[in-house]
Parts: sequence; C-alpha cells; structure tokens
Amino acid sequence: MVSEIPELLRANEAFAAAFDGRELVRPPRRRLAILTCIDARVQPERFLGLELGDAHVLRNAGARASDDAIRSLLISSWLLGTREFLVIHHTDCGMAKFTDEAVAEIIAERSGVDVSELDFLTFRDLDQSVRDDVDRIRSLSQIPADSTVSGHVYDVRTGTLREVVQAE
Amino acid sequence: MVSEIPELLRANEAFAAAFDGRELVRPPRRRLAILTCIDARVQPERFLGLELGDAHVLRNAGARASDDAIRSLLISSWLLGTREFLVIHHTDCGMAKFTDEAVAEIIAERSGVDVSELDFLTFRDLDQSVRDDVDRIRSLSQIPADSTVSGHVYDVRTGTLREVVQAE
Repeated sequence: MVSEIPELLRANEAFAAAFDGRELVRPPRRRLAILTCIDARVQPERFLGLELGDAHVLRNAGARASDDAIRSLLISSWLLGTREFLVIHHTDCGMAKFTDEAVAEIIAERSGVDVSELDFLTFRDLDQSVRDDVDRIRSLSQIPADSTVSGHVYDVRTGTLREVVQAE
Repeated sequence: MVSEIPELLRANEAFAAAFDGRELVRPPRRRLAILTCIDARVQPERFLGLELGDAHVLRNAGARASDDAIRSLLISSWLLGTREFLVIHHTDCGMAKFTDEAVAEIIAERSGVDVSELDFLTFRDLDQSVRDDVDRIRSLSQIPADSTVSGHVYDVRTGTLREVVQAE
C-alpha cells in the first residue's frame, strides 16, 4: 500500500506557510464542546462554521457518551471553560448497522483474535441513541450545573443538521 | 450565557446550501485514521488537507490511545478498511500541564464531586507520550498486521507537523 504521509506533509507545508493562528489561546473562544463520530464524511468544523480556536471537538465511533468522552468533557469544561455541549450523531452510521455481537464476530473472523469482551457501543435507533447520550451526560453530577447539552443528527447526504434534543 | 447554537445553525445552512458530498461512501477514501486531541486550535482536516470522505478522525483529551480510541480504531480498520494510523499530539497541550491528581483536585474543588477514581491520562513528556501511544496501538494483537502506525507532534504556534515515530 502506498503511504499517504508524503501527501499529508505536502498539505501541511502549504497550511503552515499561510498559518495565522499564532496568537490563539487554549480555552475555546466560543465555549463549545462538540461530540461527534469518526466518520470521514463528518467534518464538524466545516458544517458548523468553526474557526481555529472556537470549540473542542471530541470524536469516537458512533459519537457515544463513552467513559472516555466523559473524561474529555470534564477536562473541557472544568479546566478550559466550555459550557455548551452538542452531541451530534449522523445518518448512515456504521454503528447502527450491526449489533455488538456481529461487530465482535466480524473482527474475530478477520483478525483471528477474540474481542467478544469489548463493548462496541453500537445502537439500533438513531434518534434514540442521541437521546441516550444526551441523557447520560445530563445525569452526571460532575458536569457543570450552568452547562447545556443538546442532541442533533447530521445528514451525510444533504449536509444539514437536525435537532433531536433541545439544549437545556 | 448567550447560546452559540443559532449562529452554528446559520453556518450550517450556508454549508448545506453549497453541499456537494451526496455521493460519498462510508469507507474512508484514503484509508487513514487520525488520532488527535480535542484542542480547539487543532483542526486535522485543515492542517493535513483532508477533504470530506478522506479519513476517520478520532479525538479525545490528549489524543491518547485510550480503550475507547482502540474501540474506534478496531471499527475503523476491520469494518471500514483504514490501514494507516497517525497519532498526533500537540504543543501547549493542557494534558501535559497537570498530573492526574491535580486535575482530579481542580474538578473536585469546582464541581463538589469526588472524581479521584478517574484516570485522566495526563502526561509529562510530549514526545514520550506520542511514543507510548504508538507503542500501545502497535502492541495490540487485534490491530491489522498490514497496517502502519506513526507518531507526530503538531505545533499550535506554527501550524507545522513534526514526526516523532516513523510509520511501520
């Protein structure tokens, strides 16, 4: 397989040559933390108009409110001042296509390693998965009381964002 | 606090009006998975020249090879075909400024909740943290044998990427 790294480095050279973010500071300017999926068609900075320095972006398979996402959110909010959290799942998500058992089976078959002990955090119903993740974040006593959480679905066919759970 | 959501929705409307990603498919075109930090100054799609559909992007506080990042990487590679993994930490990372104990203390003070049982995955040495996370991924028997992992540091003051661990 030909490596993509040389091409990435060429792109980075061009980016650095035009770079004007030298003065940016660590706390996100707009006090936002966006939790979304790793999907390659999902680029939250673009579809939300986020500039360098505006918002924390957390991404894992399925945009789930996993323990690790919560770790990141605690650091984001308490140490760096974010107070508005958006959970953004998306249409055609791979995590809605299989059960945890099916994912474990596919990986075991292809890798030869048993991964049945892993929780892959797949889901069945897209809107319900958004509600579940919003609820999990809201239910945590460690989350700042003056923060809001909202839930959304991004449509990979149209580029539009649809609200599922209103901010509160 | 005035919500940023109306402004995000206006930006999304403009994005959707010009959207041309309708034909994109789920597997990342360039077979890349990028693991990086939630930091607001870090926008990997921009500094690597990634178009919609090119690469999976995983992001957590510190860009650590956490269990949840591994979950995402297994799905990314075995189910969606990525084979080139880049671990990208960055300069001025908040995770290098405090110990786990200090983070837990700050959060406990501000939230009133004891979080001392959480592992915040802070680190001391930036380059060593990259090597540690590359090593963790490489050591996993479930990771595809025909994949490569490399380690890098992104400089938030210059926009440049520096290699710490060569791809192999």
